[in-house]
Amino acid sequence: MSETELQADSMVPEPQLDEDDRLRPQFVDAVLDAVHDGDSARAHALAEPLHPADIADLVELAPSEDRAALVSAIADLIDGDVLAEMNDWVREALVESLTATQVADIAAELDTDDAVAIIEDMDVEDQREVLRALDPDDRAAIEEALSYPEESAGRLMQRELIAVPEHWSVGDVLDYLRKNEDLATDFWEIFVVDPSHKPVGTCALSWILRTPRVVSMGDVMKREQTLIPVDMDQEEVALRFQKYALISAAVIDPNGRLVGMITVDDIVHIISEEAGEDALLLSGAGEGDINEPVIDSYKGRVRWLLTNLLTALVAATIISLFEGTIQKMVALAALMPIVAGVGGNAGTQTMAVTVRALATNQLTQSNTLRAIQREISIALLNGVTVAIVIGTAVGLFYHHAALGGVIAAAMMTNIFIAGLAGVVVPVTLDRLKADPAVASSIFVTMTTDSMGFLAFLGLASASGLVG
Amino acid sequence: MSETELQADSMVPEPQLDEDDRLRPQFVDAVLDAVHDGDSARAHALAEPLHPADIADLVELAPSEDRAALVSAIADLIDGDVLAEMNDWVREALVESLTATQVADIAAELDTDDAVAIIEDMDVEDQREVLRALDPDDRAAIEEALSYPEESAGRLMQRELIAVPEHWSVGDVLDYLRKNEDLATDFWEIFVVDPSHKPVGTCALSWILRTPRVVSMGDVMKREQTLIPVDMDQEEVALRFQKYALISAAVIDPNGRLVGMITVDDIVHIISEEAGEDALLLSGAGEGDINEPVIDSYKGRVRWLLTNLLTALVAATIISLFEGTIQKMVALAALMPIVAGVGGNAGTQTMAVTVRALATNQLTQSNTLRAIQREISIALLNGVTVAIVIGTAVGLFYHHAALGGVIAAAMMTNIFIAGLAGVVVPVTLDRLKADPAVASSIFVTMTTDSMGFLAFLGLASASGLVG
Repeated sequence: MSETELQADSMVPEPQLDEDDRLRPQFVDAVLDAVHDGDSARAHALAEPLHPADIADLVELAPSEDRAALVSAIADLIDGDVLAEMNDWVREALVESLTATQVADIAAELDTDDAVAIIEDMDVEDQREVLRALDPDDRAAIEEALSYPEESAGRLMQRELIAVPEHWSVGDVLDYLRKNEDLATDFWEIFVVDPSHKPVGTCALSWILRTPRVVSMGDVMKREQTLIPVDMDQEEVALRFQKYALISAAVIDPNGRLVGMITVDDIVHIISEEAGEDALLLSGAGEGDINEPVIDSYKGRVRWLLTNLLTALVAATIISLFEGTIQKMVALAALMPIVAGVGGNAGTQTMAVTVRALATNQLTQSNTLRAIQREISIALLNGVTVAIVIGTAVGLFYHHAALGGVIAAAMMTNIFIAGLAGVVVPVTLDRLKADPAVASSIFVTMTTDSMGFLAFLGLASASGLVG
Repeated sequence: MSETELQADSMVPEPQLDEDDRLRPQFVDAVLDAVHDGDSARAHALAEPLHPADIADLVELAPSEDRAALVSAIADLIDGDVLAEMNDWVREALVESLTATQVADIAAELDTDDAVAIIEDMDVEDQREVLRALDPDDRAAIEEALSYPEESAGRLMQRELIAVPEHWSVGDVLDYLRKNEDLATDFWEIFVVDPSHKPVGTCALSWILRTPRVVSMGDVMKREQTLIPVDMDQEEVALRFQKYALISAAVIDPNGRLVGMITVDDIVHIISEEAGEDALLLSGAGEGDINEPVIDSYKGRVRWLLTNLLTALVAATIISLFEGTIQKMVALAALMPIVAGVGGNAGTQTMAVTVRALATNQLTQSNTLRAIQREISIALLNGVTVAIVIGTAVGLFYHHAALGGVIAAAMMTNIFIAGLAGVVVPVTLDRLKADPAVASSIFVTMTTDSMGFLAFLGLASASGLVG
């Protein structure tokens, strides 16, 4: 650990963390030991200084059989902020163990978006009970949020925001904010609305602070604003925040009226999730969360493995067409997986790049042809290089120049096909409005496997190499 | 397109965008047609209403041979904000075509972090020229930033921030902000420092707005703060912003003094990059940007393909040990890739989940053993399911129950080994301080290929199935 980090850690109030902000295993063990000993007071004392995000981590890191005891020992520390930070699966299990009144108490102290995140995964029955236990205002806000589709802006937004008319002066705004105690506390921009509550401008708080009291809001605000329709998918919301470097944004209903606000701190975990899920989707690991129940992970993954099994049968069928050839020269059996495997890898590389470029809106109709040309160039260079290496190695090892030539030609062919498939498959899926990360690798792998075996065994057979 | 989106688009000042905020291909073509016709005025008129992020996209979407002409037609629109939004590769090529004075003019109007992003990729020679053309203050700030390691907090931070002493009142702060014209304009929090310029607290602007003028800053600010050491890696900075839902954070030097500020809008693209790069790294596609020059992509990918070739040779060697067995029953050659391929897929699933959990700090020493047990359970369930399906299918198709039994047992074994390797390999690499995303798949694929062939051919041979 460098000196700077030591310095910083000593200034941060949590010595329980390692240099990567993770709870130290010794600390987690100390808390769990206290829980096992039935010493709730010690467990509580240890956990109390932690940041809500770290309390959430502590619960996640505890083995699932210990979580109930841990949570009951530190019950008063588990507030809405902690639940909002918690992994979905762990939170869901925890919320299930609480009574409706307890959940309602927690939901009441939260912004709408965080309250909704806790309630939306509950059974309809339990949900209704929690809603009944809430006061009418909170209840209406949460019911409205739940009426929007899952993963939409309507679920993400909070209703707590500051909206003022255009004719107010900066001084009016300051007085309004100072006098009204039950306004939102954490906000970064103020929205300016017309009499029908449609947003006409946005004003960063720093501009208000730097402007004399007499200036009117209409003169301080920025008229260009990025508005979020309430039914927009959260992935689109995240891309919009990223593209325009937003801190917060107004959410509008179909009539253009301001109904809520989304802030960037609610977006960062979506940006991270959406960007990170491609690696999981490409591998067929579904949601791929280590806290997901084993049986759900099994269901998600086995479906993919069985699909993969079907595509592997296609490749096996191709091989079986050449059984006579293999019989005559069994070395082909040992060499053929090389052609298929390296081709598969080349296809996966191109596919990963293409899927990422699609996800970040870098690859659009304007540059698709160029991207394909680019991948073909790279595939030709890769193909020639790998073909020379494997062709020479096989030729020398087997003292058989023709065999070297055949594997070189097959490898060249397969890497070329892999490059083409790696870009055409995801782009086509994207045009068909399917998620390219979900299905691409099945098609690409099937192509590179089948074409690898076909090219190698076909060339071996056709070239008169055998018999 | 839904009604809400139509509504929103008509309120956003850019009808040139499709529903995903991407520039419409027709619009890009119209601009390029104008450039081809030599009609700079038309191109300029089309591009002028665009947001800087969209001007950057326009340049990226233009074919590289048209970029020079496009950029010269809209030269006065290409300001620092546009360059800051531009893809690294495209920007680098563009900046190379500018004179040192032009670059210096652009850098002078930017915050330090954006200026550094433009200058850091230049040759040392060109860099020196640009620095000479800057005024002494800007020059000193940029030189200092460049003295920190690449991808560290020191490169990301801006020096423009608001820091005030603890004894100032809210009124003092308001007066200071209103009177001093050359202070930072975009900031979201104010840092409170002691006389040696060490941060003692942070104050969100919304709290200042809601507090009477007479209250002292020491009473408004929050004393718990998350400080960023200046040499911290940007990936750690991004995780810290995400974990603690930060909007901005103070950056401190090794003596604990405030030297800069990082804001969340500079972090969101890093969060997205770091989360998205795992899919690229796992596939061996390196940086994997569609704007990277072909020759660089080739170099990055071919290295991986050649490594993959070596590991494929290991698998080929194992197969060649069983050439006698295959000769006697050539159906084995057609079936063996199924065992290796589906095993490889199971390994990739587990690996993707593990790498993601490590990257998000969800998997630590505290729960490693539990994660391994979890993956073993899933592997057993997957293995049994796939083994039953393939065993039955092969047994029936070949009218050969023993062959079905052998492939079922081999499949079971390989999926089990795949699950184990998929979690143990990345965790081990992580413990050894290597990036698990970079090297895991080489080891995992080698294991599942080799073990797949060994298990299937070995069992076929040992069981007396053949001859």
